[in-house]
Amino acid sequence: MPAPNAIIDYINKNSGKFVQRLAKAVSIPSVSGDAAYREAVFDMAKFLRDELEAVGVTVRFADLGKQVLDGKELNLPPAILGSIGNDKNKKTVLLYGHYDVQPALKSDGWYTEPFTLTVDNESGRLVGRGSTDDKGPVLGWINILQAHHDLKLELPVNIKFCLEGMEESGSEGLDELVVAERGSNKFFDGIDCACIVWRRASFRSTPYLTIPQSDNYWLNTRTPCITYGLRGIVYFKVNVRGAGQDLHSGVFGGLVHEPMTDLVILLSKLVTPLGKILIPGVNDLVAPLTKDERERYETLDYSISDVEGVLGGKLTVSSDKETVLMNRMRYPSLSIHGIEGAFSAPGAKTVIPANVSGKFSIRLVPDQTPDAIEVCVKEYLMQEFAKLESKNTLEIELIHGGKPWVASPDHWNYRAAIKATEIVYGQTPDLTREGGSIPVVLTFAEALGVNICLLPMGRADDGAHSTNEKLDLSNYIEGTKLLGTYLYELATAQ
Amino acid sequence: MPAPNAIIDYINKNSGKFVQRLAKAVSIPSVSGDAAYREAVFDMAKFLRDELEAVGVTVRFADLGKQVLDGKELNLPPAILGSIGNDKNKKTVLLYGHYDVQPALKSDGWYTEPFTLTVDNESGRLVGRGSTDDKGPVLGWINILQAHHDLKLELPVNIKFCLEGMEESGSEGLDELVVAERGSNKFFDGIDCACIVWRRASFRSTPYLTIPQSDNYWLNTRTPCITYGLRGIVYFKVNVRGAGQDLHSGVFGGLVHEPMTDLVILLSKLVTPLGKILIPGVNDLVAPLTKDERERYETLDYSISDVEGVLGGKLTVSSDKETVLMNRMRYPSLSIHGIEGAFSAPGAKTVIPANVSGKFSIRLVPDQTPDAIEVCVKEYLMQEFAKLESKNTLEIELIHGGKPWVASPDHWNYRAAIKATEIVYGQTPDLTREGGSIPVVLTFAEALGVNICLLPMGRADDGAHSTNEKLDLSNYIEGTKLLGTYLYELATAQ
Repeated sequence: MPAPNAIIDYINKNSGKFVQRLAKAVSIPSVSGDAAYREAVFDMAKFLRDELEAVGVTVRFADLGKQVLDGKELNLPPAILGSIGNDKNKKTVLLYGHYDVQPALKSDGWYTEPFTLTVDNESGRLVGRGSTDDKGPVLGWINILQAHHDLKLELPVNIKFCLEGMEESGSEGLDELVVAERGSNKFFDGIDCACIVWRRASFRSTPYLTIPQSDNYWLNTRTPCITYGLRGIVYFKVNVRGAGQDLHSGVFGGLVHEPMTDLVILLSKLVTPLGKILIPGVNDLVAPLTKDERERYETLDYSISDVEGVLGGKLTVSSDKETVLMNRMRYPSLSIHGIEGAFSAPGAKTVIPANVSGKFSIRLVPDQTPDAIEVCVKEYLMQEFAKLESKNTLEIELIHGGKPWVASPDHWNYRAAIKATEIVYGQTPDLTREGGSIPVVLTFAEALGVNICLLPMGRADDGAHSTNEKLDLSNYIEGTKLLGTYLYELATAQ
Repeated sequence: MPAPNAIIDYINKNSGKFVQRLAKAVSIPSVSGDAAYREAVFDMAKFLRDELEAVGVTVRFADLGKQVLDGKELNLPPAILGSIGNDKNKKTVLLYGHYDVQPALKSDGWYTEPFTLTVDNESGRLVGRGSTDDKGPVLGWINILQAHHDLKLELPVNIKFCLEGMEESGSEGLDELVVAERGSNKFFDGIDCACIVWRRASFRSTPYLTIPQSDNYWLNTRTPCITYGLRGIVYFKVNVRGAGQDLHSGVFGGLVHEPMTDLVILLSKLVTPLGKILIPGVNDLVAPLTKDERERYETLDYSISDVEGVLGGKLTVSSDKETVLMNRMRYPSLSIHGIEGAFSAPGAKTVIPANVSGKFSIRLVPDQTPDAIEVCVKEYLMQEFAKLESKNTLEIELIHGGKPWVASPDHWNYRAAIKATEIVYGQTPDLTREGGSIPVVLTFAEALGVNICLLPMGRADDGAHSTNEKLDLSNYIEGTKLLGTYLYELATAQ
């Protein structure tokens, strides 16, 4: 069922208040990755508790223990566990968000103070750290609850909130909390589905991540999207060891087995310039493409020129839209990231490095698992190394692994999200899978076994994690309507 | 003719004085690579001028201009040009050495103060920075001149000295000086041959260079050697450029041409794990091995276990002594040094580097020239890159190049050096070629066109450029006798 008109009217009339709420939230510099800001992270938790309690939510802080950061032992910010509604006849939806932010200094290149929300009336942008990632989306839910509270309307579904304050710093303690709080009469008991409105988890504070076109933001800046899949990852370190110390190429060049020679040969056997993975077995584990799924890529509002614009050149492996989309969303990829232990500085050094480690990762898709791919990679590299007849030694380490995640977009949770999007934006959203990993999605999917929908509020060009992060006012307000409408559609979806 | 007994007696009786002279020289911290020590480098030049003048040498300081170092404009230390003897009936020999040293701090791991010569009576070692590289050898010549001066003996040959104070810092200004001072009535006019007693020039202040088995030191610590050849070098930077910025592998992995993929494939096509260079044309330019030359390697006092000891493992590409020696001395080698622009730190970063540069170098031997090899390398890499059908762009830069050098070991200059070694050490020296480059040798060889002999004073384990650099007292004193004897043998050699 659609949201009552009164809710939509309330949102239209109170947009000024909602912006003030976001301004207050942005003014609390809840940077989780810097010990100096830890108190502000706690302040942000208290701010949200007060806001949630004011609109009728029962709130509990879940203590996640301690961490050591910058040489100091610090209390981890709490997970905020909130509940509103307990009607056995209604569905219960879990809403996840995070209240910590990436670091930001004006000197990084911000045009305005990052922790002061600046309303640019001309462009319609709300500029400030956390505006889109993830304070705007979290407050969107609170705006909806406020509407119901002020209008004395009953919520169409029961809601549980799990809001964490360490998402930008590895979600420390969250996995343990989710496992501890599942099962009968625990917090996560009785949840029917989940919705995550945010941007990204695994894409942390690295400059090269400030690229549009990512995650469950809109695929472009035109068409809304809903994300139903994420790739997993296996990250490998391939060590080739030779002499006990680095050698001079003038003295030893030609008489010794050089680890770099072996390593570049091994790395050259992983993937073709067109991106075809050469490791036997890896592609065999990819789930077959169905006609339905194939058609989904054809309908996506996306063009090669979109991605060429971001890349700064004609650098895609194919000029076919569907191929490029599928390579990103539903096929594995292998990237070679670099080499540790070799000469990497500018200039010319005539060293034979004694101990070098190649780093590469494979993005995984169903039905690949980190365990199965690890076996393929290790067997293949050991075989290829044996062919080299080198006297150096090889060691292959799996640095970390995470499974891919795909939800069924035919689930009523998605139908509700699609319907809500159509109502609010007048457009059928693109159903997308994304190329990166969001560990917290996997945490909930695996621990709770429920359907999870990734619903975006912002746009592809919001610059989360970047300087001058923004959320369009229209996305904040229409997005709030979207969240409210989603709850009503959820109530009746089947 | 052998050196007069009086000279040998004088050296034996005055070894204490010679050690004091070395102690005085070591106490002047003439570090050319650090602006803070520049005055000491000038002090060292004055010390040598005084020592040379005291034994009858006419000395001139050649101004080499200025340099910028650590942000300061500094006067370059002078080249010391000295002459003694002008007898048209005698040969004239050019003696090159350098009076600057590598940096040294006790905290680097020295057991004693680096700029205080410590005489270890038990081991017979003279420990201090510059003892073997190159103050001991330079003072060896002065010791010989002092013997002649004190004994009022005429020198058997005319001598010209060229001593520089910038050898450890790129020999700045020397090339220009040598070119400016050649030709009739210039300083370098009338030189018949040259002798260089030192260790190395191109092997500068890098920790991985502190390896025995190098250059014109003894090939091992047992048998004296004389060096008649050095390999040249071409150093390449292969740039592969993709997107305008680094990309995230989750977002772009699979849809874009990745520069690292292309680069490792290119680098894998350069050389086999056994060291065979795969670039067409490169091996064709290697001068054929003659029977005479082959026999020379067979007679060298060297074993695979010598090199395995240094490497810390059984890592040689062959277990055949002659093959290993020839790979080092008379065949080219190709080493891959590293990659600039890729992820090189510890840890796991999921970056697709946008702009990566592979660095490799080829050690050259006659009849290879940097110009000819540059053509082979560029043509080959461009062809191989074209095969990749990549949309990235390739650029190949030659960073620097230097020709190989080989002198005729059948020249009378070498016969004199061999004879002198046999007289002083009672052993026929190993005739070796070395794997590295010494630019100054090429400077003199090309500018003056005379035969140059590289005669060592120290041993393979002296640790020049390293902590606890030493010169064995026996090598200093017997080495002084060797230099004197060489001058007499030179006088009559033909």
